[in-house]
Amino acid sequence: MVHATEAYNPENIFAKILRGEIPCTPVYEDDYALAFPDINPQAPVHILVIPKGDYVSAADFAANAPPEMITGFMRALGKVAAAAGLEDSGYRLISNAGPDSHQEVPHLHYHILGGQPVGPLVVK
Amino acid sequence: MVHATEAYNPENIFAKILRGEIPCTPVYEDDYALAFPDINPQAPVHILVIPKGDYVSAADFAANAPPEMITGFMRALGKVAAAAGLEDSGYRLISNAGPDSHQEVPHLHYHILGGQPVGPLVVK
Repeated sequence: MVHATEAYNPENIFAKILRGEIPCTPVYEDDYALAFPDINPQAPVHILVIPKGDYVSAADFAANAPPEMITGFMRALGKVAAAAGLEDSGYRLISNAGPDSHQEVPHLHYHILGGQPVGPLVVK
Repeated sequence: MVHATEAYNPENIFAKILRGEIPCTPVYEDDYALAFPDINPQAPVHILVIPKGDYVSAADFAANAPPEMITGFMRALGKVAAAAGLEDSGYRLISNAGPDSHQEVPHLHYHILGGQPVGPLVVK
């Protein structure tokens, strides 16, 4: 299970995607972010957006990413959602950090979920 | 229902909290963000973090907030989670934008959910 503040492990699958060692089908890319469809979609539109930098989680990113990266990455989230046609219908942004959130890959990623109403925040 | 790109309505409840017209019990505050407990918690720890600026949603924020605000607000998210003792156990960040996400207040807010495992991403 990913620890929100653990050291970055460059062998995670998203690092391999960023290095081109594992193929993906980008839906958006710029200097700060790469976005591609989730392979196990939980909604009609389910896109993952990852930063082009070595950040384990949202906690690591918030503490350690430089301002230019933070701004570029957050702007990219909006651009990805708009490019996916979700700006009018709406979308949910989710980022899991650490064990209780079930973060599965130890590289920061935001989920963009939309295409239908996405239900309550949390299942207890 | 909130539209992700609608004009900001200064009569929303979070604007009133920021102006001091409605009381809240802050758990964190800085120049960019104010954080307080959700009045209808969905997890043992459920904190709302709002920017000190007129942003309808994550979409509006991504497109229109200046870099200093984006950086300050994202750093604040990490500080709030750490102050709540969630950095080791982990947490889920959620922000709802627009109709399909069930955004209820038309002022950008991130939910920080933790204190126990928070379940799957989405209920269909």
